[in-house]
Amino acid sequence: MNKFTECTFPLKNVRIKDEFWNRYTNLVREVILPYQWNALNDRIPDAPPSYAVRNLRIAAGVEEGEYQGLVFQDSDMAKWLEAASYSLAVQPDETLESQVDEIIDLIGKAQLPDGYMNTYYIVKEPGRRWTNLWECHELYCAGHLIEAAVAHYEATGKRKFLDIMCRFADHIDSVFGPEPGKKRGYPGHEEIELALFKLYRVTGEERYLNLALFFINERGKTPYYFDVEAEERGWVHHWAHKGQRPSQTKEYNQYHLPVREQKKAVGHAVRAVYLYSGMADAALETGDEELGDACRTLWNNITGRQMYITGGIGSTHIGEAFTFDYDLPNDTVYQETCASIGLLLFSRRMLQLEKHGKYADVMERALYNSILSGIALDGNRFFYCNPMEVWPEASEKNPCRRHIKPERQKWYGCACCPPNIARLLSSIGGYIYSRDGNTIYTHLYIGSELEAELDGEKVILAQKTDYPWDGEVTIQVMGITEKEFDLALRMPGWCDQASLKINGEECSIGYRLRDGYIHIERTWTNGDTIVFQMEMKPQLIQAHPQVRANAGRAAIQRGPVVYCLEEVDNGKNLSAISISHDIRLDAYRDAALPGNAVAVRGQGMRINDSLWDENELYRPLQLNVTPVTIKAVPYFMWGNRGIGEMLVWIRCQ
Amino acid sequence: MNKFTECTFPLKNVRIKDEFWNRYTNLVREVILPYQWNALNDRIPDAPPSYAVRNLRIAAGVEEGEYQGLVFQDSDMAKWLEAASYSLAVQPDETLESQVDEIIDLIGKAQLPDGYMNTYYIVKEPGRRWTNLWECHELYCAGHLIEAAVAHYEATGKRKFLDIMCRFADHIDSVFGPEPGKKRGYPGHEEIELALFKLYRVTGEERYLNLALFFINERGKTPYYFDVEAEERGWVHHWAHKGQRPSQTKEYNQYHLPVREQKKAVGHAVRAVYLYSGMADAALETGDEELGDACRTLWNNITGRQMYITGGIGSTHIGEAFTFDYDLPNDTVYQETCASIGLLLFSRRMLQLEKHGKYADVMERALYNSILSGIALDGNRFFYCNPMEVWPEASEKNPCRRHIKPERQKWYGCACCPPNIARLLSSIGGYIYSRDGNTIYTHLYIGSELEAELDGEKVILAQKTDYPWDGEVTIQVMGITEKEFDLALRMPGWCDQASLKINGEECSIGYRLRDGYIHIERTWTNGDTIVFQMEMKPQLIQAHPQVRANAGRAAIQRGPVVYCLEEVDNGKNLSAISISHDIRLDAYRDAALPGNAVAVRGQGMRINDSLWDENELYRPLQLNVTPVTIKAVPYFMWGNRGIGEMLVWIRCQ
Repeated sequence: MNKFTECTFPLKNVRIKDEFWNRYTNLVREVILPYQWNALNDRIPDAPPSYAVRNLRIAAGVEEGEYQGLVFQDSDMAKWLEAASYSLAVQPDETLESQVDEIIDLIGKAQLPDGYMNTYYIVKEPGRRWTNLWECHELYCAGHLIEAAVAHYEATGKRKFLDIMCRFADHIDSVFGPEPGKKRGYPGHEEIELALFKLYRVTGEERYLNLALFFINERGKTPYYFDVEAEERGWVHHWAHKGQRPSQTKEYNQYHLPVREQKKAVGHAVRAVYLYSGMADAALETGDEELGDACRTLWNNITGRQMYITGGIGSTHIGEAFTFDYDLPNDTVYQETCASIGLLLFSRRMLQLEKHGKYADVMERALYNSILSGIALDGNRFFYCNPMEVWPEASEKNPCRRHIKPERQKWYGCACCPPNIARLLSSIGGYIYSRDGNTIYTHLYIGSELEAELDGEKVILAQKTDYPWDGEVTIQVMGITEKEFDLALRMPGWCDQASLKINGEECSIGYRLRDGYIHIERTWTNGDTIVFQMEMKPQLIQAHPQVRANAGRAAIQRGPVVYCLEEVDNGKNLSAISISHDIRLDAYRDAALPGNAVAVRGQGMRINDSLWDENELYRPLQLNVTPVTIKAVPYFMWGNRGIGEMLVWIRCQ
Repeated sequence: MNKFTECTFPLKNVRIKDEFWNRYTNLVREVILPYQWNALNDRIPDAPPSYAVRNLRIAAGVEEGEYQGLVFQDSDMAKWLEAASYSLAVQPDETLESQVDEIIDLIGKAQLPDGYMNTYYIVKEPGRRWTNLWECHELYCAGHLIEAAVAHYEATGKRKFLDIMCRFADHIDSVFGPEPGKKRGYPGHEEIELALFKLYRVTGEERYLNLALFFINERGKTPYYFDVEAEERGWVHHWAHKGQRPSQTKEYNQYHLPVREQKKAVGHAVRAVYLYSGMADAALETGDEELGDACRTLWNNITGRQMYITGGIGSTHIGEAFTFDYDLPNDTVYQETCASIGLLLFSRRMLQLEKHGKYADVMERALYNSILSGIALDGNRFFYCNPMEVWPEASEKNPCRRHIKPERQKWYGCACCPPNIARLLSSIGGYIYSRDGNTIYTHLYIGSELEAELDGEKVILAQKTDYPWDGEVTIQVMGITEKEFDLALRMPGWCDQASLKINGEECSIGYRLRDGYIHIERTWTNGDTIVFQMEMKPQLIQAHPQVRANAGRAAIQRGPVVYCLEEVDNGKNLSAISISHDIRLDAYRDAALPGNAVAVRGQGMRINDSLWDENELYRPLQLNVTPVTIKAVPYFMWGNRGIGEMLVWIRCQ
């Protein structure tokens, strides 16, 4: 059995039963998937068309026309198929299933006899396939299609899509690899690595594992493959003009060094974390310690140096990229939703490699903040870039901040994020639990029912909680008569006080705590109940002093949720607000917020600007502040109540 | 007589005798002009070539070759000629004069029989002249050449260059204007307006005045001329590809509205302030009140809403442009040196229109801060962009800050700023004094000797001062026996305490103070001496609370000089430093600084970062600061002691 299957539970075995999360899983089924289906079919008024389904129909020969949209439009459709499959795994839906089947039929028709499948190259540049891995996302699209096929097979048991994609993967395997006559290429946008691990796990075919390992290990070797292929095609470029070398650096695509030698996260953030996720998969499946160390180094670099407090990454929109250690500007931030999802994927894989709560802490941080921020509460508007502070007039009038949209958009010409959120939300059940031998780990606190099998015996864990608004979690063990196993509960990094009761009896946590998990080893009997109580109070958080953008500032966090100020609650000019380091912050259920969410309030100060003369811009300093009540709301909810300013890092004295 | 001549003194009549400024005037003659001569002749190793002289030689038919460099390279040569002429006006220099004459000969040879002169169009696109005013800087180059010719004539009395340029201006006048058959065009980059006013003043030819007024008044009328000419040439673009509309807006070139209706400074900052300077010239010469009001509105908008504390303008490098009110980011600032010079030119003209100290305050603010910052203390390195905070690693690794150079450069491919600084420094004597009937105004405190003529009688004012390091100014009236006139001394906006002595006797200032000037009306006798003492102490300055970037921050200013922190004095990570609002700041002569300049020191605090764990990026807030002595140096001197961090706006509690 592969290592991954050993340490995970199938998505089908986890039922979400949670007020907070069922809102999202319902939204996926009722709003997000239908909305995105319309988007992929170019039926959203006043939104950039996707062309994804149309391109596929043309490739399949059922429609006439020309390819339109970006070179990687297939991937949007693939991510939607993956999301739809996860949804079907937990809840049947005839309409959805028929839409999915319709697309799979078209993919089958479009696929060429040798297994190749990519609508751009089939329709627009036949004969030029595999000539520009650097720029044209061919392996990236293949990866998303493969992931979708695996998800579809696991959800429905139907093999059609999986077989189509196995033929495609076999074709790819015939083209790339270390053997003489094969191309020594690797993807310009990493992603297929992850997909091939999944395909290997579901089919058991080692050639998919080996192909994934080849892509990972070949990366960064000299001569650089992207130069070799560019030379071969006469330096014709997809994005730039002929003869003009694109401005992208080797770091942009993470091929500046062999992966084991990479110490800092660089370049396009999504590509980076997809690569690192693949590396972690490889380390898990092969036990390659050197690769595992490289993953740890890169994960530490990201989370210890280059991650926003919201779990987002990517400090610049230019290249959608990492910049350098401690450079986390709030005003020109990028923090793409896909990158946050990628960091969650990477952290999840690190957790499989090494059971340590810090990985789940980052998963949770990204999930409850920068990822959920990417989608409107009503499910049909999306952020690509998730800012840390918003001044709508600056977004409009200062070109350096034009990428920062003050409201979620209907769709994007490059619409990678919306279906990526959909597939994450619809597979959220897969991130809650994992296993290691006789230990069942609970990583996330989400009301749910896990059906696990331990030594051939069924165990049910029923988790109940009002997380993230409340820190109490109840877990009941069911479905057994008597069974010995270790139940490990994550002690979140944000929590400094917690209590544990087993069947009503207070238990000490201290000696049970190892690497961020409270281990409860005992012989369980049916109905045994744990109550884990994490004290959840609003806290002021500071960033490392080297983060220049946040010097003299604090952010409010309660549990895993980062808070922000919005203009609708606090008036214009949020930068004029400051708080004291000993501010008393009160958390309360706010009926005015969707889902009766928890808001935070306290007494702050606001710089008084009423005493300034017209046209006076500078003058000798006089302190002049007015007390104000500040109200902070969960960051992920921002921008759901009209356009206005937003601020995460508040001046603090 | 024109209004301008009525209210100014010829440059020749002002001798600079000043420790601070003679350093610069000597530098101009001994270092800057020779260095820039070499740059224009492509003789600076490892610097981008200018091609300016080479293009001229090709146009003149004395060298073979192709035009190289940007379309407006002529203007760099023109500004150098203007700077050289100002220098010759106050100090003869045979080598320099022969270099100037050599260039003027070439210009004469290059000029076409009908008077046209522009090396780009003569060499590279003959037959396409005046087809793309929008983008190709043809009138801009003409303007700089005309300004140079006027300066040369005034300096040397030689008419050759002036005559060449009169022929060119006559040609332009034959092409553009309101008359039937003429083009109703105006410059894409404003500048010729200023030049034509100068040409009118020196020649007395009203057609130059009328052409300037035409360019100003035609601007922004519909149909937009730039659309008309683009249509005529089939939308061929100089910077973009054929058929592709450039991304520039109408605001970028200030033709979105007729000039009288423009209320806010918009678009490319240099173009804007050159236009407004021309408008102020027009208001002065014609008495057009509506135009004067437009100038006041625009000047107020800039200085009351869009100006950095250093007197710089341009909040974004994208389009080198204004953004919007109170948007003055420190990290992505542009603040081009040319724009600061342009604001000085505009303010100088406002001062001619309306004697109010606020205009001279802004002149002085730009001069001692963002303008002098543009040139290294040794005279041969230059800033294009003048940042408000520098983190060298960010300049290198965060593309949003790549335009912010942490050190002055040898030259630029687009080298507008270096010769612009040269012409400003070499004509500084022209900004110190002006007159209004029987009143002699002193705007700037610079050691100098003015030879004025009042009602046909000669009056000499001998000004002595150690400004900007010391606030004491002595002015002695000489060259007369007895004469009644009004001597008006500017009371700077930064000064809140001053004293005045006439011939040793203390005089009250209050009743003499009108619109920022202390008026001393009396019958002067030879040797009468005024001692004006401005108390000069370091002050903390705050920005308007709407300037979000500076909320909770203060800048240090002493007299007209803005200060900054540098890494060389204060260590790495300047953002970790904060000061108290009641900090005691001591000013002292610092022998370690060039020119024994005044530095400022005081006790601040620094966030302690020694107690953070490896890989810890966020944690609950704990105040933990260490007292530190901070040292601030004049902003204009920054970056003269190696590469390092710099910060103007310091966190302040």
